[in-house]
Amino acid sequence: MKSEDLKAVRRFVKEHLDGRHAELDAFEEKPSDVYERFRETGLANWWLPESLGGRGLSLEDGVEIVNELAYGDAGVAFTSFISVLGTSMVQLYGSEELKERHLRPMVERGSFCATLGSERTAGSELAKIDTVVAVDGDELVVTGEKFFSTNTDFADFLLVVGRSAEDPEQSAMVLIPRDTPGIEIVKRWDVIGVRASYTYQVSLKGCRVPVANRLEGSGLRLLEIGLNASRILIATTALGIARRVRDHCMTYAKTKPLHDGTLLDSQVFAAKLGQMEMQIDVMKSHLLRAARDYDAIMANPDAADLFHRQGTLKSALTAKMFCGQAGWEVASVGSEMFGGLGYTHESPIGKLMRDMRYVSVVEGGDDVLRDLVFGRYVIPVPRRS
Amino acid sequence: MKSEDLKAVRRFVKEHLDGRHAELDAFEEKPSDVYERFRETGLANWWLPESLGGRGLSLEDGVEIVNELAYGDAGVAFTSFISVLGTSMVQLYGSEELKERHLRPMVERGSFCATLGSERTAGSELAKIDTVVAVDGDELVVTGEKFFSTNTDFADFLLVVGRSAEDPEQSAMVLIPRDTPGIEIVKRWDVIGVRASYTYQVSLKGCRVPVANRLEGSGLRLLEIGLNASRILIATTALGIARRVRDHCMTYAKTKPLHDGTLLDSQVFAAKLGQMEMQIDVMKSHLLRAARDYDAIMANPDAADLFHRQGTLKSALTAKMFCGQAGWEVASVGSEMFGGLGYTHESPIGKLMRDMRYVSVVEGGDDVLRDLVFGRYVIPVPRRS
Amino acid sequence: MKSEDLKAVRRFVKEHLDGRHAELDAFEEKPSDVYERFRETGLANWWLPESLGGRGLSLEDGVEIVNELAYGDAGVAFTSFISVLGTSMVQLYGSEELKERHLRPMVERGSFCATLGSERTAGSELAKIDTVVAVDGDELVVTGEKFFSTNTDFADFLLVVGRSAEDPEQSAMVLIPRDTPGIEIVKRWDVIGVRASYTYQVSLKGCRVPVANRLEGSGLRLLEIGLNASRILIATTALGIARRVRDHCMTYAKTKPLHDGTLLDSQVFAAKLGQMEMQIDVMKSHLLRAARDYDAIMANPDAADLFHRQGTLKSALTAKMFCGQAGWEVASVGSEMFGGLGYTHESPIGKLMRDMRYVSVVEGGDDVLRDLVFGRYVIPVPRRS
Amino acid sequence: MKSEDLKAVRRFVKEHLDGRHAELDAFEEKPSDVYERFRETGLANWWLPESLGGRGLSLEDGVEIVNELAYGDAGVAFTSFISVLGTSMVQLYGSEELKERHLRPMVERGSFCATLGSERTAGSELAKIDTVVAVDGDELVVTGEKFFSTNTDFADFLLVVGRSAEDPEQSAMVLIPRDTPGIEIVKRWDVIGVRASYTYQVSLKGCRVPVANRLEGSGLRLLEIGLNASRILIATTALGIARRVRDHCMTYAKTKPLHDGTLLDSQVFAAKLGQMEMQIDVMKSHLLRAARDYDAIMANPDAADLFHRQGTLKSALTAKMFCGQAGWEVASVGSEMFGGLGYTHESPIGKLMRDMRYVSVVEGGDDVLRDLVFGRYVIPVPRRS
Repeated sequence: MKSEDLKAVRRFVKEHLDGRHAELDAFEEKPSDVYERFRETGLANWWLPESLGGRGLSLEDGVEIVNELAYGDAGVAFTSFISVLGTSMVQLYGSEELKERHLRPMVERGSFCATLGSERTAGSELAKIDTVVAVDGDELVVTGEKFFSTNTDFADFLLVVGRSAEDPEQSAMVLIPRDTPGIEIVKRWDVIGVRASYTYQVSLKGCRVPVANRLEGSGLRLLEIGLNASRILIATTALGIARRVRDHCMTYAKTKPLHDGTLLDSQVFAAKLGQMEMQIDVMKSHLLRAARDYDAIMANPDAADLFHRQGTLKSALTAKMFCGQAGWEVASVGSEMFGGLGYTHESPIGKLMRDMRYVSVVEGGDDVLRDLVFGRYVIPVPRRS
Repeated sequence: MKSEDLKAVRRFVKEHLDGRHAELDAFEEKPSDVYERFRETGLANWWLPESLGGRGLSLEDGVEIVNELAYGDAGVAFTSFISVLGTSMVQLYGSEELKERHLRPMVERGSFCATLGSERTAGSELAKIDTVVAVDGDELVVTGEKFFSTNTDFADFLLVVGRSAEDPEQSAMVLIPRDTPGIEIVKRWDVIGVRASYTYQVSLKGCRVPVANRLEGSGLRLLEIGLNASRILIATTALGIARRVRDHCMTYAKTKPLHDGTLLDSQVFAAKLGQMEMQIDVMKSHLLRAARDYDAIMANPDAADLFHRQGTLKSALTAKMFCGQAGWEVASVGSEMFGGLGYTHESPIGKLMRDMRYVSVVEGGDDVLRDLVFGRYVIPVPRRS
Repeated sequence: MKSEDLKAVRRFVKEHLDGRHAELDAFEEKPSDVYERFRETGLANWWLPESLGGRGLSLEDGVEIVNELAYGDAGVAFTSFISVLGTSMVQLYGSEELKERHLRPMVERGSFCATLGSERTAGSELAKIDTVVAVDGDELVVTGEKFFSTNTDFADFLLVVGRSAEDPEQSAMVLIPRDTPGIEIVKRWDVIGVRASYTYQVSLKGCRVPVANRLEGSGLRLLEIGLNASRILIATTALGIARRVRDHCMTYAKTKPLHDGTLLDSQVFAAKLGQMEMQIDVMKSHLLRAARDYDAIMANPDAADLFHRQGTLKSALTAKMFCGQAGWEVASVGSEMFGGLGYTHESPIGKLMRDMRYVSVVEGGDDVLRDLVFGRYVIPVPRRS
Repeated sequence: MKSEDLKAVRRFVKEHLDGRHAELDAFEEKPSDVYERFRETGLANWWLPESLGGRGLSLEDGVEIVNELAYGDAGVAFTSFISVLGTSMVQLYGSEELKERHLRPMVERGSFCATLGSERTAGSELAKIDTVVAVDGDELVVTGEKFFSTNTDFADFLLVVGRSAEDPEQSAMVLIPRDTPGIEIVKRWDVIGVRASYTYQVSLKGCRVPVANRLEGSGLRLLEIGLNASRILIATTALGIARRVRDHCMTYAKTKPLHDGTLLDSQVFAAKLGQMEMQIDVMKSHLLRAARDYDAIMANPDAADLFHRQGTLKSALTAKMFCGQAGWEVASVGSEMFGGLGYTHESPIGKLMRDMRYVSVVEGGDDVLRDLVFGRYVIPVPRRS
């Protein structure tokens, strides 16, 4: 990443997100113009490979970018990076033709894709999905109800996990263009935070696509692989939000009278901020390391195979767990610091707290991740840290 | 308290609060009809003394009532009990005439009073208040800006802390009827939780009342005394909210499929709920003890003197600290338990979390209370627990 | 309890425990003379009923006494009260003759009894015990290996849980005099804290007692009932230790130079001590309430039946959980406060930390108790707090 | 570092530390033979530069080595690396002659040096030191009392901070060979953990050394710089201890019967271990990053200048804070997991807990470090993370 890129992101945050927290929290109907503005930085979908005309930035670069975006607004950050979950699966397990037809236009248009995994009775337990993928000649027919899917309404295409009609033990990941007949937005979820993002309940009624739209490999395994990048970036939003909390605390403390000075002179305040800064510093170290773990595999010509063998990366799991937990501590401490004012919508801290909460909730709660870490990375002795 | 009373409260909660969490969270303009319904239970302002025609219930009874109300809605609970802050000061330090003229009608009407302490630059440091109380013949003239005051707009009367124009070292507590010219509601605060309650910024422009409307004693000391009851009841809302969180968890767990059963079979879930129940049980023990400490003084004929010497009660401080902290832990654990659904407004958990936050914020944050506990109850060796 | 009693305990602590922390921590071979000194206060086995010549003090009194004893030394406290586990079972479920023969002398001698529950493979899961109780004519023959049993070596008698040889589904609680042939002390456990107490591994080889030495009812249920009092008193030691930690902090802070004053002037120190005092205050509220719950049943003529139906009391479980957790927080904060000196044996804080640890470990760890609370007091809706 | 080096460390741990926890905890009089055995690996003082005949390993390598050593025994680890505090100051701010005369032999002998900073009334506030360094012709005369100094008795030389007799505002760092007359070991501190290490109270009575033994620059600033490496390695011991706790838990769980299986099947156990593994993983990421921060400066030809400008590194502070805190959580959870057995000296967990405690205590408690982080890295906006 060129240093101008990061500067461009910071400028975008400053010009288009700062001071707009009420508006970005307002749950507006249409994707705000901020996404248009972000596109103008040339960094929309920054991770798409150069071979397809993209910027080809690493996940380590992505951590830096999302850190800045989330400092501005976590919902905007989420909307901007979550397509990586779908595109990384296409990039690793899609045919050249699929990439040319679907990823290259995303570069040009700065547009979105969506991944549809969870269902009403299959949240953390994806093995329970009911969506069915049937083969009908040279077409696939996909039918099911998907519970939480971000960006779907305005995405270029959807990646849908379903089980095979022929063999229910098998799962498939199918790319379905958004304009395919049978895709129905049931509703947009009224989320409590990251409200500049758009998450939908979606119904798929006999959506037909060519057989070639199926990615190679088990759909569930592919989803697990795709979640590596998105979990690391979700964890990164905790970093950006935490930095914003810290800076709000400092700004507030400078003007809040206390005894003969300001809150800034309070030792107790200093102790809280020193602790926050430590947490922020550790989050950053770990996020960058997790991203490097990912990039190291991605840089390998055998990335698809390596990921297939590895599945979920340990550091992606621990990054989301740690940043969700440390971020929540930062938000909890921050949300007590502003007295009555901090309990009103005049202060951004209430929104920052609600935004922070999503880190530990989406793409696997801590209970699910702890279990995964235990089963995959503690039980097998050589995989322990 | 007769056992029917508590049943009446539970019935009120069931009939008028249950299932209305979205509405009660909607920040409606006018005090909802729920207050009218609560009045019909005959328990409005349950603590007003029998000598004035009131129910004369103890604070221990109050803990039981607020526990139930807050289980229904913390904002409704807050609105319903916060008048105690003002009435207890009038009861202890007002003339018989003031009580007859202002407290007795509150019994009959089931109406509200408001206490106006904090100012923009005098939040936790009330010694810094700028509101001035001047003597003009046999009248007091009160002028100032009050930052956070609950119930003021629809209160019968206001209790206002100001400093004496004649001697700025002295502070006064003055009862001002709501219809006194010069009271101006600047705005209602758009709070992030307890949104069925009404907190205002208020301007007082030369409000004139008879000299006899001044309560006896230092205004700041009286405020400190009044806060004993209200802090214990604010702490009690944490108990009610925590019980609601627990019950939502249990209801959810029964229907949430997990592996071959439901979430209810999960040992990890059981451990979380066992821990919650412990926290709830301890909160209740401590709240009842704090209330008994208060009632013991209140039952004494010398209550006014005893409170004047004692000021803030230790157990009132520790109750608010403890319940705020334990309640936040319960809300934090609860808010992670419902997956994506818990991150939407379809689940009440987001509201419960925002409601819970107020316990550690209003009427003194933990930093302020810890400092008070240290100075008053740790430094003097015999006052240590 | 007469106020002189508590004064006598405080005097005992001051004269015989204060300043002896190194000696009491030294794991001496023989029960120290401190127990002889405690006997001289007339309060040894203070809970034994007046009908047997005892002081008949309530558990609420016991909380006050143990609070003071543990302030002096948690190991001495543990040794002094743990007989209550056994005597309360004899008192509730033993014949009059057993009480006369075994409890009355304990009053006179101020001596000890021991309860033998846990086994190597039956720690928290007592249902797995292997010790066998066989009937041979009018005698019982008890054979087994008991893992952790406190006071056994110098006890007057032992209460042993075993399963019936005739019906392995049935368990029995048998009183075995210490001088019965076949009781063999395998070893004394080298515990990391409460080192003035004595816990043994014990082998029982065909110990013969009259059939009448069997208490009435299921042995496991009786054990559960006996644990009510002992768990509340174990939890109380956390209170005493925490108060000692606090007082050490205050003593240290007065003399520890910091900037231009002492540590006592530090706001951060004040915040820590304010938080500690809150935790101490809440512990005490909850312990007294738990003790009152127990006393209320015990005061009932049908106490034996009531306890049999109730089994483990909720507040006994939550008291041990809460005090163990809050106590550990106090000890953790305290143990960081003394710099390098606090990391040496010249400071008592290391011992206090090790002593505190036992609260969450003995008589059921938190995992076991959380599970019990969940199963017994959350699942059944009417038993929720 | 060659991969054989790490293997050699692991072999050393396995052969000479494993299974000896009781002995290493016994506070033996003489440095155990384990240091002799470690010397045989060729890795003693692994960080000494190649220009002086040393291995010249980086601090990043040091983190890997200390991680393994502390897995074996934290006291042995501490003894083995703490010389880096002194040698790094000599390396950066000593004359070539000093390095040749004092560092080169340390390579050959695998011997130790000691740093003497803290005094009775100058623990965390080093500005208050009373030790005096006076110039007498071409000699320095050093007189004072030093409170905590590790390795001193058997060190080759001491680095002593004192204030200048001529200008009390100035402080000096002076190298004093161990055999200099006037060095008196007052006592060895009886520490509660890391008991295989040796920390002394030392008296310096007119110790005379050539003027050239004074390092260049302010003594206090040099100490701050030296602490960078040692704090990172102290933090690293938390990682090693935490890994050992985890592995003990796993070993124990395999054989501990629970219900129909073992503790290993418990979901609650899995959750705890998953959380531990996350904490371990994050500690490691951050420690390696902190070490790289240090190495990056050290690799610079202007390292002495750069460090002089920078003083204490942010990541060294945050590493010690974080690992001390996360490590304490791991130790706290671990120490509850083994039932009664874990409360005896038959289990290593008590020792691991005591060892862990030193991380947050030595070389600056968290209060001191939080304050440093706030003043140096939060107040100046561009230095925030």
